[in-house]
Amino acid sequence: MERIYQGKTKDVYLLEDGNVRLFFKDEMTGKDGVFDPGENQIGLTVEGSGRSGLAVSQHFFERLNKEGVPTHFLGANLDEKTMDVKKAVVFGNGIEVICRFKATGSFVRRYGQYVEEGADLGGFVEITLKDDERQDPTINEDALVLLGILKEGEYEIIKEQTKKISEIIKKELADKGLELFDIKLEFGRGEKAGEVILIDEISGGNMRVFDGTTPVHPLDFGKYLFA
Amino acid sequence: MERIYQGKTKDVYLLEDGNVRLFFKDEMTGKDGVFDPGENQIGLTVEGSGRSGLAVSQHFFERLNKEGVPTHFLGANLDEKTMDVKKAVVFGNGIEVICRFKATGSFVRRYGQYVEEGADLGGFVEITLKDDERQDPTINEDALVLLGILKEGEYEIIKEQTKKISEIIKKELADKGLELFDIKLEFGRGEKAGEVILIDEISGGNMRVFDGTTPVHPLDFGKYLFA
Repeated sequence: MERIYQGKTKDVYLLEDGNVRLFFKDEMTGKDGVFDPGENQIGLTVEGSGRSGLAVSQHFFERLNKEGVPTHFLGANLDEKTMDVKKAVVFGNGIEVICRFKATGSFVRRYGQYVEEGADLGGFVEITLKDDERQDPTINEDALVLLGILKEGEYEIIKEQTKKISEIIKKELADKGLELFDIKLEFGRGEKAGEVILIDEISGGNMRVFDGTTPVHPLDFGKYLFA
Repeated sequence: MERIYQGKTKDVYLLEDGNVRLFFKDEMTGKDGVFDPGENQIGLTVEGSGRSGLAVSQHFFERLNKEGVPTHFLGANLDEKTMDVKKAVVFGNGIEVICRFKATGSFVRRYGQYVEEGADLGGFVEITLKDDERQDPTINEDALVLLGILKEGEYEIIKEQTKKISEIIKKELADKGLELFDIKLEFGRGEKAGEVILIDEISGGNMRVFDGTTPVHPLDFGKYLFA
């Protein structure tokens, strides 16, 4: 099994059948030891966080597959901390698609002249480039096409899928008494022509969720979801 | 005559007939004494720069009006360093619309993972908020509508007008042997319903222009345009 990528929170292996195995590490993004999904740095190593993130991902992916949303998910092995997925090609060097229900984080830092923390954003979607060195800059549709990252029409597909996926997850969390503020998704091109599929993971590390006024720590997601 | 606004490079007065008079100051944007249209700070005071910027603005506005482009321009008085314009309401607290023909400045700082300095961008358009404190963040169409800065449909109008105006200016400069790399425009809502008009000035301070490989200083525009 060949390791084809070593990431901050996951390693990626190529399987002999052409599919891909993700190994979930016990690393979380954050700064100064505090978890922050908006951060690019690995802030902390937490025993069990890999398995926990995987269990949450598995839960959401199975739910999305049931709803007919195209994803890369094939199956998960919690004991091995691995998730098997279909091969996908990321857009450019990777883009992050953010769906925002409540204003917080970089949205308020950027647009604070017009919006207050916690304001309703109704599922607004924006895209940032994965580029630590340049602090993951936001980018508009025309620039994504101009720079060859997206093909014409893909922005609209990604936006619609993001809204659909985020609404499903928002509802799922609401059923557990939680509120989704924002969520960060990744997409790639699948093996079929024109196919855009949800990739990466869907865990607490990718979203900001509140239990009333208290932020829910990613490691506590399981307690709510699997209670 | 009541002064209604005091800007970095211009003061604005309300005329009795309801129109507006702009007074061009001898201030230029830049940093550490060096002119830079991408800067928010006033970098230098240059005797004659107000009159020079006005003459260039007048030249371009007259050209645009001839081409049927809706602008706020009514007339100019070079001796008084004033330009009379129609009243317009800016979008939100002001937005800047940038048309890029060659990659440079903040575009390369943001998207340098995908683009090299000087690469052809074919008249790509993007919008930033006027917000010095937040370094004029870029903003996409959905966010502009969400935050109430633009109404549905205005983004497309602004983008098309920006492309048209920028092409006219690019051609005008090319006729003088100069190359337009990028240009920053401002728009506002006119008094007629649904009307979007070009406002502010159109001078060397709003664009990056090259004579071969040499950047043209804003104060030298007149030499080329009026030769």
